[in-house]
Amino acid sequence: MTDTIYIGKDVLKELPELLKNRAFSKVVVLVDENTLAQCYPLLKPNLPEHELIQVRSGEENKTLQTCEHIWQRMTEMNLDRWSVLVNLGGGVIGDMGGFCAAVFKRGIYFVQVPTTLLAQVDASVGGKTGLDFHGLKNHIGVYKEPQAVFINPAFLETLSPRQLKSGYAEVIKHWLIADADKFKEQRHVGLFVEEWEDLIRHSVSIKAKVVEADPLEGGYRKVLNFGHTVGHALESYLLEKPERQLLHGEAIAVGMLCEAWLSVKHDLLQQQELDKIETFLISIYEKVQLREEDIQQISLLALQDKKNSSAAINCTLLKGIGQAVYDQPVTVQEIVSSLRYYSLL
Amino acid sequence: MTDTIYIGKDVLKELPELLKNRAFSKVVVLVDENTLAQCYPLLKPNLPEHELIQVRSGEENKTLQTCEHIWQRMTEMNLDRWSVLVNLGGGVIGDMGGFCAAVFKRGIYFVQVPTTLLAQVDASVGGKTGLDFHGLKNHIGVYKEPQAVFINPAFLETLSPRQLKSGYAEVIKHWLIADADKFKEQRHVGLFVEEWEDLIRHSVSIKAKVVEADPLEGGYRKVLNFGHTVGHALESYLLEKPERQLLHGEAIAVGMLCEAWLSVKHDLLQQQELDKIETFLISIYEKVQLREEDIQQISLLALQDKKNSSAAINCTLLKGIGQAVYDQPVTVQEIVSSLRYYSLL
Repeated sequence: MTDTIYIGKDVLKELPELLKNRAFSKVVVLVDENTLAQCYPLLKPNLPEHELIQVRSGEENKTLQTCEHIWQRMTEMNLDRWSVLVNLGGGVIGDMGGFCAAVFKRGIYFVQVPTTLLAQVDASVGGKTGLDFHGLKNHIGVYKEPQAVFINPAFLETLSPRQLKSGYAEVIKHWLIADADKFKEQRHVGLFVEEWEDLIRHSVSIKAKVVEADPLEGGYRKVLNFGHTVGHALESYLLEKPERQLLHGEAIAVGMLCEAWLSVKHDLLQQQELDKIETFLISIYEKVQLREEDIQQISLLALQDKKNSSAAINCTLLKGIGQAVYDQPVTVQEIVSSLRYYSLL
Repeated sequence: MTDTIYIGKDVLKELPELLKNRAFSKVVVLVDENTLAQCYPLLKPNLPEHELIQVRSGEENKTLQTCEHIWQRMTEMNLDRWSVLVNLGGGVIGDMGGFCAAVFKRGIYFVQVPTTLLAQVDASVGGKTGLDFHGLKNHIGVYKEPQAVFINPAFLETLSPRQLKSGYAEVIKHWLIADADKFKEQRHVGLFVEEWEDLIRHSVSIKAKVVEADPLEGGYRKVLNFGHTVGHALESYLLEKPERQLLHGEAIAVGMLCEAWLSVKHDLLQQQELDKIETFLISIYEKVQLREEDIQQISLLALQDKKNSSAAINCTLLKGIGQAVYDQPVTVQEIVSSLRYYSLL
């Protein structure tokens, strides 16, 4: 899998070779207003003749309506099955562009050029594509691998500190579920990373190893869901409240705290390990204010998460720092308690 | 592949066993108003506890809007990844239900129970799912195999003669592309078939053999497109004209005549073979009236067909009765000529 993932500052120079070798009939680049202004200028010199499709940025536009617009434009451009869609952007562009390509005429090619840290270390690996449906995250989608992924750390310079922190949450998650030493080493560095390239490479390799072992999430891949049961529910809940919206990683940071706490309650994690995780995450992420009413509703939303069988909420918990266990049944009431723990931090 | 296709009058009795063995968490049946009234009573005694989703019948409802309705109902029913959707109906229900299942939460299970001859011999095999987009047939879709297909010839008794003839076109197509002897034998029978079960089994086995050799339509599978370049374009064109709409097989019958004529022009088929095909098809299918303006527009639509690279119209032609060759480049002008031939028959 990782042989289709290119990482490095000069990586975009490989793109013309790939596009030429595959003899694609047409090249189309999907952008939003931000990546058009800030990232497209870096990409453009490496592309042959191509056309652009532009959509509006933001999770609130990861909808069927936007997909309809993309398909309409693809149809107008007369794209055939040998066309390629280059998705230039964060997770929204990558997930939605991947989905649009995967189902247009039952599948055209696509290439991912992730521009946020989050998309580079998470969405870039594993073939998940999708869109939000009636407020439910990635409710509609398919598994489909891109032709290639080009990860250029230079794009990170276009990010706000808030976006960078959001992506960092998935990096931290990879340490917590798979590499205790790296967590120990990095928790003193905090967010003051000078060289992202190695961290990205390390993170991508952890995710790739997990996904290769279980591509369709039959079991083991669920370890990647650590922080996501509570995190996704929180994110979905606040998606409806524009003034309180969180970035994905901000929600996952809260989710990791809640689920680390649940890991202690389930006798899988020691209290002092939770303390370390707490200290680290709190030093980076701003506190999210939650009222009792919020907590109740978020917990109910967690039940609708797509990884659950209808009977129980299956959660991924930590068995010590650096190891995760999946399919741990957790009750709605326990989710409520974990969110109360968080809101009292 | 054929080991998941069950054919016969008692076939629905196998369904409870399958549903039990796979331990699906929920069973949902997708119907339209016709299959609810005429087919569901036969299916119901063989099902465990289940729920229904109903959509309106007809190709004009094979849209993203209908899919949205289906996903909304699936969400309300709290379906999880271990649920199964049983698609009870013709090609529209099977294609659209298959697509909705394939992308809901990145894929739940589905079972096909085709109730028309067309769906039994064609849509039931090969894993194509999809919907129409802005008048373009199956423009959005994925390849995904169902868990099982249950073909009960008893459902054919619920069909109008017009619907039966529509499905028969795909049966005839299978003979034309793969079995000259069967064509010779059956062209004296015409539509007066007494025992459908064997014909269905024969047709399904031809299609299954082709699909197994080339599941993703990289090449050889395209032989199944005989009649479909012109046929699809004609069908799409008349879809927008409610008073002139054709059933799929009716359009394919026209397409087969046009493309057999093109096969003669390309020195692949002999004139006397074309005569035999003509005589047979004309005895079954009513003439479709086409004006010069219609012919021009249908030919342009053929260019938009998803099997074409943008440069040429790739057509499947007959190399004698019983054998097909794919990727034969044909010009828009040749399509025009073939439709003129048809309209002068």
